[in-house]
Amino acid sequence: MTLQYIFELTGTALFAASGALVANDKSNADWFGVTFLGLITCLGGGSFRDILLGAYPLAWIKDISVLIAGFTGIILAALFYNALKRYRKNLFIVETFALGMFTIIGTQKALDFGVHPLIAAVMGMFSAVMGGVLRDVLTNEIPVLFKKEIYATACVAGALLYVLLVRTSSFPQLNLILSALLIVFIRFISVRYKLSLPKFRN
Amino acid sequence: MTLQYIFELTGTALFAASGALVANDKSNADWFGVTFLGLITCLGGGSFRDILLGAYPLAWIKDISVLIAGFTGIILAALFYNALKRYRKNLFIVETFALGMFTIIGTQKALDFGVHPLIAAVMGMFSAVMGGVLRDVLTNEIPVLFKKEIYATACVAGALLYVLLVRTSSFPQLNLILSALLIVFIRFISVRYKLSLPKFRN
Amino acid sequence: MTLQYIFELTGTALFAASGALVANDKSNADWFGVTFLGLITCLGGGSFRDILLGAYPLAWIKDISVLIAGFTGIILAALFYNALKRYRKNLFIVETFALGMFTIIGTQKALDFGVHPLIAAVMGMFSAVMGGVLRDVLTNEIPVLFKKEIYATACVAGALLYVLLVRTSSFPQLNLILSALLIVFIRFISVRYKLSLPKFRN
Repeated sequence: MTLQYIFELTGTALFAASGALVANDKSNADWFGVTFLGLITCLGGGSFRDILLGAYPLAWIKDISVLIAGFTGIILAALFYNALKRYRKNLFIVETFALGMFTIIGTQKALDFGVHPLIAAVMGMFSAVMGGVLRDVLTNEIPVLFKKEIYATACVAGALLYVLLVRTSSFPQLNLILSALLIVFIRFISVRYKLSLPKFRN
Repeated sequence: MTLQYIFELTGTALFAASGALVANDKSNADWFGVTFLGLITCLGGGSFRDILLGAYPLAWIKDISVLIAGFTGIILAALFYNALKRYRKNLFIVETFALGMFTIIGTQKALDFGVHPLIAAVMGMFSAVMGGVLRDVLTNEIPVLFKKEIYATACVAGALLYVLLVRTSSFPQLNLILSALLIVFIRFISVRYKLSLPKFRN
Repeated sequence: MTLQYIFELTGTALFAASGALVANDKSNADWFGVTFLGLITCLGGGSFRDILLGAYPLAWIKDISVLIAGFTGIILAALFYNALKRYRKNLFIVETFALGMFTIIGTQKALDFGVHPLIAAVMGMFSAVMGGVLRDVLTNEIPVLFKKEIYATACVAGALLYVLLVRTSSFPQLNLILSALLIVFIRFISVRYKLSLPKFRN
């Protein structure tokens, strides 16, 4: 349990940092705006999920550590801005692991609420991607989600694997790790080989 | 009751299909993005209403059939894409009936929550239009709502008629049908004669 | 208590009026759209806060007077459009006082919910600024929040002062007034001397 909590706080800091960097690059926001957008990125997905589920109180409202983790990430992003820019590729790797973890933790939270496994998978995906979507909407960008890259699809795939494993396997930690790794794997492969999903219809 | 349920699922499928078609035309989204936006279109309005009312659990989270109806609509839209494009006018007619029904069903749900009739009318309008608004916001379009056409206004008019009828008439089915037809009528007339509301001030 | 209620309704009317004017200037919306956007401006911030807190029922859904206050503001804005345009500067002054009050009332509502003082300050800021953010997002504008002006930062500063005063002083009315005045002061100074926050990183 404690390990998952540490993971969540670390993931939150990471999402906040990466959200702040994107907001800084794509908008004219001052440091307040960038901080605001960084926090939206890291808290938005889970809040979106919990509001849809009616799962009150929201995690970051109940536990101030979550907000502090987000702030910490943003401050670190400001301090190590140049290094982070230079090692963008390494950042992508860490981010992708966080994406995988956020998805599966979100899926599990939805399952705890007793919803249908398909709904839980959707909620897991929301947890991971809606923060970035909200940030993009607020800065008048088209969300990454609706661009070519395989991104949310990877999250859905991992979440579906997870709800399947939960029913069949009795190794909770393993289920989490395998499903998160599937997300990481799909994302790496699709970025590496520039894979993209087909269009709906032309 | 069963008839209303069938209507709701059909309306959901229809809204999902039409939302997916609009998303496909207006954005560069791949099939995942189009599916996502189609589902937002059909589930967004009711979710928006229920979150404002605190009416948990949300319909589509409680009952997986709603999500399946949405998916079905989107799959059918992909399969019969060309036909749907060709008969766009007929689609508009069916859509308008769904719009009317969504509005009135949404108004009734709000009334069931014991809110003021005016609030219920607003909630009815939200149920019908906010899904499309959310889709447009996510794809960086100005929502139809804020363009010239008489659209949400028709929903408000029908919803207001409904809350009036509910107080005076004792034929629930008739109230629903008359109010939904008023919406359809206003919408048809305004599109046919290119009517639009005046500007606020120039 | 009654005084605070009168303040809230007046503030709501004012925010609705100013929201409608901005929507009228920046978008092509007809009077329905402008009314809709004016109401979003005055109700959006408090609704956003209450949905995050799970503070049901929302103020404007429980008490129809809030919606009526909003409508009244919008009707007055239409009637006195030219005068309001001419005295824009005076309007700015009144608006800023409303901004200060909305922030502190929102902060207090969050504190009543037993949240951490930092969270309460964030909620106070949300109460004051998110209505305008939602309006801007719906009309495809970049929210003022993410532009240069010191705006939300002033709200956060006032809210932080308030949560501090609440712990130390025993004069509730004075706490409210001092904190709201800090917001007004920062806002006036920053507009007068064209102050802006530094960038995050270049």
